[in-house]
Amino acid sequence: MNAPGAQAGHGEHSRRDAAAAAAGAAGTRLDPWFSSYAERAHGMRASEVRSLFAVANRPEVVSLAGGMPNIDGLPLDFLAEMTAKLLRDRGPKVLQYGGGQGEEELREQIVDVMRYDHVHAHPDDVIVTTGSQQALDLVTEIFVDPGDVVVAEAPSYVGALGVFRAYQADVVHVAMDDDGLVPEELDRTLTELKRAGRTVKFLYTVPNYHNPAGVTLSLERRPQIVEICRRHHVLVLEDNPYGLLGFDADPMPSLKSLDDDGVVYLGSFSKTFAPGYRVGWALAPHAVREKLVLASEAAILSPTMMGQLSVSTYLSSYDWYGQVKSYRAMYRERRDAMMAALGEFLPEASWTVPEGGFYTWVKLPEGLDAQAMLPRAVTNLVAYVSGTAFYADGQGHDHMRLSFCYPTPERIREGVRRLADVVRAEADLVTMFGTAPHPPRPEESVVDFPSPDQV
Amino acid sequence: MNAPGAQAGHGEHSRRDAAAAAAGAAGTRLDPWFSSYAERAHGMRASEVRSLFAVANRPEVVSLAGGMPNIDGLPLDFLAEMTAKLLRDRGPKVLQYGGGQGEEELREQIVDVMRYDHVHAHPDDVIVTTGSQQALDLVTEIFVDPGDVVVAEAPSYVGALGVFRAYQADVVHVAMDDDGLVPEELDRTLTELKRAGRTVKFLYTVPNYHNPAGVTLSLERRPQIVEICRRHHVLVLEDNPYGLLGFDADPMPSLKSLDDDGVVYLGSFSKTFAPGYRVGWALAPHAVREKLVLASEAAILSPTMMGQLSVSTYLSSYDWYGQVKSYRAMYRERRDAMMAALGEFLPEASWTVPEGGFYTWVKLPEGLDAQAMLPRAVTNLVAYVSGTAFYADGQGHDHMRLSFCYPTPERIREGVRRLADVVRAEADLVTMFGTAPHPPRPEESVVDFPSPDQV
Repeated sequence: MNAPGAQAGHGEHSRRDAAAAAAGAAGTRLDPWFSSYAERAHGMRASEVRSLFAVANRPEVVSLAGGMPNIDGLPLDFLAEMTAKLLRDRGPKVLQYGGGQGEEELREQIVDVMRYDHVHAHPDDVIVTTGSQQALDLVTEIFVDPGDVVVAEAPSYVGALGVFRAYQADVVHVAMDDDGLVPEELDRTLTELKRAGRTVKFLYTVPNYHNPAGVTLSLERRPQIVEICRRHHVLVLEDNPYGLLGFDADPMPSLKSLDDDGVVYLGSFSKTFAPGYRVGWALAPHAVREKLVLASEAAILSPTMMGQLSVSTYLSSYDWYGQVKSYRAMYRERRDAMMAALGEFLPEASWTVPEGGFYTWVKLPEGLDAQAMLPRAVTNLVAYVSGTAFYADGQGHDHMRLSFCYPTPERIREGVRRLADVVRAEADLVTMFGTAPHPPRPEESVVDFPSPDQV
Repeated sequence: MNAPGAQAGHGEHSRRDAAAAAAGAAGTRLDPWFSSYAERAHGMRASEVRSLFAVANRPEVVSLAGGMPNIDGLPLDFLAEMTAKLLRDRGPKVLQYGGGQGEEELREQIVDVMRYDHVHAHPDDVIVTTGSQQALDLVTEIFVDPGDVVVAEAPSYVGALGVFRAYQADVVHVAMDDDGLVPEELDRTLTELKRAGRTVKFLYTVPNYHNPAGVTLSLERRPQIVEICRRHHVLVLEDNPYGLLGFDADPMPSLKSLDDDGVVYLGSFSKTFAPGYRVGWALAPHAVREKLVLASEAAILSPTMMGQLSVSTYLSSYDWYGQVKSYRAMYRERRDAMMAALGEFLPEASWTVPEGGFYTWVKLPEGLDAQAMLPRAVTNLVAYVSGTAFYADGQGHDHMRLSFCYPTPERIREGVRRLADVVRAEADLVTMFGTAPHPPRPEESVVDFPSPDQV
């Protein structure tokens, strides 16, 4: 590419150090702007887990940590032809700004996709976002003042916890069991919070194939959850990235289908098609949707037309639901490999049996600490995410999340085998020295933002 | 596409209305969640100008309002082939999640692009964002607490004002003249703010081909602005979307090139290539860049790989700078058409003569009000943006922004001719009835977020 002559140099680094030092009382040696940050930014430091995951990404490590979908089955030749034609036929539209709400033709298709979740929506109530992560960010932006409460499952999606903490929400966890969120616990928690004078802005929930817990909210509980929230006048934020990836059954009715006015529904093409386009959406009550569009326009002006029209063309010209079915079969095989390996190598642990999605939630044998054990696991060439990442309040040391989405069944088996070695060595230490000492928890004061390795 | 049978219906609208009514004291009839919004969301209402612009987008209206680049010159066949090859050769990477900071190969190319602005940077200090709008949002997120001051030019970019208001900043404007921001005014303002005990977080400035003012910060003033901000320990947020689109000369040294530690620089491919990919960037002091990445990961996980790798491949395989030169020639011709038409049809007004970019800033004859006149202009089939959109404090009624980027030279001439008729009819009213009565200003309490028509 053309560029003028001068070389990019590192000379400015010494200048930077000098200036930082000169900033004196106004800053720190390392960051001259330290004293200028907003309140919300003070906790934004990369957790130490990050450097560990940089190691975990080496090919010799079996990563059971990441949430990256396996997209090997996508029809690259078809997508190449489709995209070339799209650029030739509709280039001036594809390459231009779009509207802040997203393209109408795509919003109509999203309405069709949501019928699988029993949702009957209008395209005008849909906003297209930069992945459903941006929708999560926007909903939190328009609802949460610092100190407000967000109620979430125990455990909860690490990327959601990062957003809630960025907006200075207090997260209160509610227990789950094998049938998902426990209605009685939700009711009790909301009642107690009200009694304590707290302002609860919404319940954040992943009803299908939960990340990280691997469980699904039962059919029976769905109207109960909705009724409890309606009674407490608490909005439901229903996050459903994995809904179409059930291994054995069609999706159950979404919470949105049970209370259109009380639920904001988030969807995504990242797991059913491909994450590289960054196309997700929110379906919201009309007045909420209006605010989401305004907030999104302030944040990004408009979502990518290249991404939106690529997804739209794929939906209209390819058997996308057939592709979803082949994803299901592929992930089911990996889930089976994970379950078999856990049974064979880690019978002393217990775990959930997911009926869809990417994850199982493993309880370690008594006395073991998933966060403390992680460096030893990586040394033994296997990675996972410690349960602590999925709580806002320091719980989770006794759990780990294992994902089966990305490695092959053979690698999954090998990874669990390596993990079992680590668990056994760790258990021997506990037996010898009593309960393992609780490690320092540097991350508890840190906004542990998700890296894409952890979603 | 495949989809289950049921039709999307509008039946839920009546259900919604009933539920909204039932919400009673907790909400309003129209929005059951009215009482639940965050403080920052209360001003998020679409301004009335929006519905006007919906009309202004009709083909019979000459829009001198929009900031959409004219991308007719892009090589669609080349892009089609390039993208097909990209998907075939690197599909699994293009379609997957990427890192939160953006692709290293693109960040290296961005460093090359910034050499035209005399910036010598390191790719590790660059973060790729969803257009530079997202970078603006992220910088504001990590620096601004409610009630903090952001200093900005008078007038200032409407999209930036929307972001600052969303984070509840107080915007204080500083005067410009034909040489851009006036250093003495900046120094005086910062001194007064300090004396008043206010916390100033940054100066937001568009030094090149200002939107909306159409002026450029002179070479002589650049080190002065940087020195003043350094002395007051105020960060500079330098927004440079149009920097390469100068009609006659190469870019002057950017503020970033004069104080690496004191400046966050924002760049974009939306005007030099195409907005449809939504790829922009920030270059920031290292510690600031780290926080920007964490904030961006919370907001969107990672920027689009499809967009990033498309831009990267275009930069490495096409004469992109030749394309920039042809954009320059095209926009210069349109600027000339605008200047000639203003001289011919509107000699009673005054305006800036932009040396690049998309906009001229027109001062109306005494007594006229751009905001009040707009509906009459649209009725006469011409649209502009009222000067009031570019101030946080209700100024700007005597100005309008005219853009020459999108319509052809012939349409620009016709648009200005129609506008002159409206101005003349309005001036006659003023002469007959004295100064035109000041209209009510419903927008002053509203966060007037930019629509893509107004950027």
